[in-house]
This record gives sequence, C-alpha cells and structure tokens, in this order.
Amino acid sequence: MDMHELTRELCEGNESKIVVLVADGLGGLPLEPGGKTELESAATPNMDALAVTGILGGSIPVKPGITPGSGPGHLGLFGYDPLKYRIGRGALEATGIGFELQPGDVAARGNFCTLDTDGNISDRRAGRLPTAESTLLAERLNEIKIEGTEVIVLPVREHRFVVVFRGPASGDLALGDRVNDTDPQSTGIPPLPPEGRDKPSQRTAKIAVQFVAAAGELLADERQANGLTLRGFAERPNLPTYEDVYGLKSAAIAVYPMYKGLARLVGMDIVGEAKTLDEQMDVLRDIYDQYDFFFLHYKYTDSTGEDGAFGEKVKKIEAFDAAVPSAIALNPSVLIITGDHSTPSFLRSHSWHSVPTLLASAACRPDRCTEFSESACVQGGLGQFEAKYLMLLAMANAGRLGKFGA
Amino acid sequence: MDMHELTRELCEGNESKIVVLVADGLGGLPLEPGGKTELESAATPNMDALAVTGILGGSIPVKPGITPGSGPGHLGLFGYDPLKYRIGRGALEATGIGFELQPGDVAARGNFCTLDTDGNISDRRAGRLPTAESTLLAERLNEIKIEGTEVIVLPVREHRFVVVFRGPASGDLALGDRVNDTDPQSTGIPPLPPEGRDKPSQRTAKIAVQFVAAAGELLADERQANGLTLRGFAERPNLPTYEDVYGLKSAAIAVYPMYKGLARLVGMDIVGEAKTLDEQMDVLRDIYDQYDFFFLHYKYTDSTGEDGAFGEKVKKIEAFDAAVPSAIALNPSVLIITGDHSTPSFLRSHSWHSVPTLLASAACRPDRCTEFSESACVQGGLGQFEAKYLMLLAMANAGRLGKFGA
Repeated sequence: MDMHELTRELCEGNESKIVVLVADGLGGLPLEPGGKTELESAATPNMDALAVTGILGGSIPVKPGITPGSGPGHLGLFGYDPLKYRIGRGALEATGIGFELQPGDVAARGNFCTLDTDGNISDRRAGRLPTAESTLLAERLNEIKIEGTEVIVLPVREHRFVVVFRGPASGDLALGDRVNDTDPQSTGIPPLPPEGRDKPSQRTAKIAVQFVAAAGELLADERQANGLTLRGFAERPNLPTYEDVYGLKSAAIAVYPMYKGLARLVGMDIVGEAKTLDEQMDVLRDIYDQYDFFFLHYKYTDSTGEDGAFGEKVKKIEAFDAAVPSAIALNPSVLIITGDHSTPSFLRSHSWHSVPTLLASAACRPDRCTEFSESACVQGGLGQFEAKYLMLLAMANAGRLGKFGA
Repeated sequence: MDMHELTRELCEGNESKIVVLVADGLGGLPLEPGGKTELESAATPNMDALAVTGILGGSIPVKPGITPGSGPGHLGLFGYDPLKYRIGRGALEATGIGFELQPGDVAARGNFCTLDTDGNISDRRAGRLPTAESTLLAERLNEIKIEGTEVIVLPVREHRFVVVFRGPASGDLALGDRVNDTDPQSTGIPPLPPEGRDKPSQRTAKIAVQFVAAAGELLADERQANGLTLRGFAERPNLPTYEDVYGLKSAAIAVYPMYKGLARLVGMDIVGEAKTLDEQMDVLRDIYDQYDFFFLHYKYTDSTGEDGAFGEKVKKIEAFDAAVPSAIALNPSVLIITGDHSTPSFLRSHSWHSVPTLLASAACRPDRCTEFSESACVQGGLGQFEAKYLMLLAMANAGRLGKFGA
C-alpha cells in the first residue's frame, strides 16, 4: 500500500507546527581510523541539548548502500519514495535554475560542443566556454521558433544550458519524454539524432530535430560552440502535494534555486528571499503563523563536504547549530534536524551512509543519547530507518495522524 | 523497483576487490539465561580487531522471525530477495549433490519406499536402506528410457535420490514443474499419481507416470525398496548473474557441493578443490588477481550447531577466526564476515535470529563496537538489516555504485 493513501486516510488537522531543518550532506566520516566525524568534531551545544530530550536515529536516504543525488535525497525526506518518484535530469536541471516546469513541458539538459568540419564532435564541452559567453549563446537560441511549440532556452553555467519544449498539458498533441540522449558520450562521431520511443515522444523528437538544425545555423560561425547535444529529456514529475497527502500548508525557506524548486514540486510555497541562515530564521519567524509545516534548507554542510574541506564543514555545522535556538524559540510541536544524505569530506562526494537525525516533540520517546553525532544516532531510539518514513513520524508526533483501523 | 534494476543502472567498474567470508550458521544463543553465545564464548582476536575499525550489524536472512534453509539463506546474502526467487526442492537437491541443472530440466526429489502386496506404502523410507544399496538402485533406474526425454537418476543418501527429466530448453515441448508430490505423507495408501497443473507440467507428469511404472518393474523383486515417491518437482531457478546485476567477475571457494551449486546458480565460477579452510585461503590468494568478488563458505559452524555441540561450534569459530588474517593480508577493498543464518546449538537447527555481520572498508563509518559478537552487533552502525541489502553495502563501500539520480 502506498504510504500516501494511508496518510490521506489518517491525517487530521490541528494547530501544530512542524519545523524541519535540513543541513544538506550533514553526515560524515572520520578522516582516519579512530577519528571523529565532522559533526562529532563540531561544538554543537544546542543540538546536543535537544538530543537529551529528543530521539535520535539514522536516516537511510534510499536503501542501504544507495547514494542519492539531491533530487532523490529530498524526495525521501519529503516522504516520497525516491524509487517510485523519479525526477529526470532535464527536469532537475530546470528546477535547479529556478525555472518552474508546467504540465506539458519537456526539458532537456543541453551542452554546447565543438564540431569539426565533418560534423563530428571534437570537444563535448566546447572548451568549457565561459558562462558569460554561453549565456549570450543561450539567449540567441531562445529566438528559435518552432511551429506549434514554445521553445525556451535557459543558460546554466559554462557549456551547459536547458531547453524546454512547451507542448499542450494533455491531449492528442502532448509531448513525451522518452527520447534518447543525442550526446554520444565520445568524440570523433557526430551527435546522435533524437528519436522517440512512443508516439508522444516522437513528436518531441521531431521538435528536437528542428531545434538542433536551427541552432546549427545560428551557431555556425562560432569557433568553439558551433554545435550542441541534448540529454535527459524529462517531463515535470507528477508528485502529489503536501496539502493532498498530509493536509499541510507548507513553506520552504531555501537560498538556492534547486531546493526551492524541489519544494515547489511537492506544492510548498517558496517564501522569503533570505541569503543567509540568519535571514532564513527571520523568514521562519515572520511566516510562522501562516503555515503548518516549514522546510528550511542549509547548503554549506554539503558544499564544504564536496570540497573535502573537513575543517570548513565543521565550522558550517557550528554555524548551523548556532541558528537552532531561533527555531526552538518558536516552540514548534515537532522539530526535526537532519540532512538529505551524507557528504563526508573524506569522500568529497555524496554518500550512502545514514544521516544523523534528531526529532524533538512533547510525545517523542527519548532515548539515552546525550549528543547529536553519528555514533549517538546509531544508539538512537529511531534506529536506522528509510528517510521516506520521517514524515510519518513528524505527522504522528504532531498529533496529525489518526488511528489506523479500529 | 527491483534492486537489480537499480544496481544494473548504477554499477561502475573499478579495481576494487570484495571478499565475503561466510561462516554458515554463525549466529547462536546462550545455553542459559545470562550466558554467552558460541561466538561470544570463542576467542576471536582477529575479528574483534576488525570490529574496532569496521562497522557491525545484524543481518536478517529473510524477514524477522523467518528461518531460512540454505537456499534462501544464501540467496539473501547474494543479494537476491529470497521471497522473490525460490529454489524448488528438486532443484536444491540436485544442486546439493553437485549436479548442474540446465534450462529445460525438471528435477524431483525421490524416496525409495516399501509397498505392500496391495500397492500401499508400508514404509515411506524403505527402512532407510544403506546408501551403498540405494546407490546401486539409483544406477539401475538410470537405465530407464523414455521417448523424447532424457532421464537422469542420481543417488543421494539412504533412501533419497534425485531424478531429472531433461526436456527442451524452450518451445512447445518444454516441461513444466507444477506437478504434485506423489508422496502422500502417510502409509497404508498407494503413492499419488503425478498430475500437471498446466500444459507443460502435464507433459512432465506424463513422463513421471512412465518413469514410476518402469521403476516399478525394475524394483519389483526388491524386499524393501520396491517402490518410490517423487516430490518437489522444480525447474532450474532463473537467477540473473553477478556479472549482469553487479558487473562483478565472481568466484566461489566452497568445500561442499550445495554451496558450490548455489554460487553457480548466480553465475559465480567455482574455483579450486580445497578441502580445508587453509586450502580455501590458499585458493583465495591464488585466484585473487583474476576476480572482483570472492565468496568463501565455511560449513562447520553450522554442522556443529545442528549437532547441538556448543563447545565444538566454539572451536570451529576459533578456527575460522584464525584464518581471517589470510584474507586481511590480501588487503581487500571490502571485507565482510557474516553467515547465511544462525544455527544456535541450543536449538540444534537453523533459526530466524539475525546474523552477526562485520563490514570493513576505508569508507565504512566505524561504530563504537570493539568485539565481534551478537551483543555488539545489536549496537552496530548497520543496525538490523535484511540480508538482501548486504551486496548493496558491499558495492557502495567498494566504490562500485554511482549516484542515484541527479
């Protein structure tokens, strides 16, 4: 049984507030045997105090051993089975630059590339041309007109862009996303022709063929970026909303477009224009009366981990801890601190390790943990659980889930 | 979503080596309240040292409370959901005596029995006739010819044998395995006639009827074993291979035919002819350069448990521990020590209890455990997990699983 059928059936309204603070890539690893993780090295008096009265556990983002990208990492946290709901690369790229896909859109990730005189790819990334330059090229491509379809080209960074083909939201002329990548993943051969694997996707492929041809003319005189490839054709993922599955009026307080976009996909309102964690906490306070559920996203625990900057990640965790009292001061019914995945500085990448998770509420059953750390979370009362169950725990602790069965 | 679809999508090749040491029936129980288990009673300095730097947990073979046979126990360890992939009794018996089933084969477990003058069963096991005698009878039955089908009769032990009906691997004349047991499970009545529940199985049943009739004539003059029953008709289970689902070139180092056979079913190469654990370790060293993945099976922790020989099981665990440094010396990327299920001497049988499991790798997140024992594994960072996820953890720790989603 789908968990959302269950929550739809059981969810009840009340005045409770649920606050989820997400430190992206929170979990870590020691740098050497017997050492401490980033979280264990950081001075985190506020989270440690919460650990005493709250309950801890380890959140498994997808399944044991599976390392998630940001998309599946957040879907899990939001309570959506990341193996059931998938966000295609094109849709995630569009989301990541703050473009709101509509039903009927098919987005693809584009790369400018260099073609030789025979039309073969000589550089798949067009020499990683500067963003300023590729932005101008993307604007030029944005002028392409294809009959019956709106074409939107959006710059990303360096050689990357996004193209959105906007078709009808439904009906006989709707576009499909089962189109192959045109990037052959190697040089010395030409880009592949786009081909659709079903009727709606054949329509998309036909549009893509026209787009590539028109772009070829517009780029013909470019020295580096005289060609392009497309990949990850994807429709807007069809996710039920928080209002629908949890009965929650929900708000996202994020700095980066990607996390705003992911929250928007599940129907959260994107609120405020905070640029710092303090400003995010200000927004939280300002809108506190207007929503039931608050997702606050903090990026820097992930980016420092990706950089392999152990000491910097420690500092970012300490900065995060320093902001926690602002959330506590609001006295939410349920306060959760977690991450979407681990990003150990040791690995310089996302990882599969479970994510330290803390839940505090009047009705939680405290365990014996007295600090917020990976080691403590192993001993925590929540055990090791799949992230997709966290929202059920949040709802239960908020008194928002009625009894199942008589 | 099937986990193998996911691993096929995410698996990446590299130079890493994964070694899995399986002590069959490793988990145990104390003999009296407050006592220690076999593993806790054994001196295991090598595994204890690994427990400090590695991560521990409890592997649940199938689901909580479910006691597996050797088949599902190993399928789980190998990463195949034992509730999805089932190995019928006939196929397992054939596997257990080292017979390699082919696509198109249907195997059944046979019992010699004693029939009275009315054709009713008077002894379902033909007085457990000596193996030497039953082997001769099986050879006699092996002479039976049935038009269009190859019939292979293989002796097992005492009253037991295996019969394989070899049909075409596919097509209109393929054989099915949905045939009832002919053993009525009681005496004073005749064996049941074999009947097929679908077209291909009706063909098998027809062959089985001819086989039973021909065997009846050949056995007519026997005093004890003048009849037979068949049960557990089963095709070769159709398991995807390790190469297919994990991209691993894999080798099995086992002494007993059953475990060689189970490994062969998932496409592992069966290497060496080791008869002792030391010889198995020699084989591991000899073939180490040629494979990515190594499954080494040690039987005696199970057989001593089945015998209820607590002290003997302790000694076998100590012998196993003494061999562990030979594996460590190879410096594998991932070293896992576990069992396919528990076999507590106290119960003299397989059991449902979780199996002590240890994973050591550069990227594992060490917990606070300092010894390898059932009690420590409860406190371990892997928590209690289903055995089928162990291969995902092995692959992740070996750096062989790419990121899921962007």
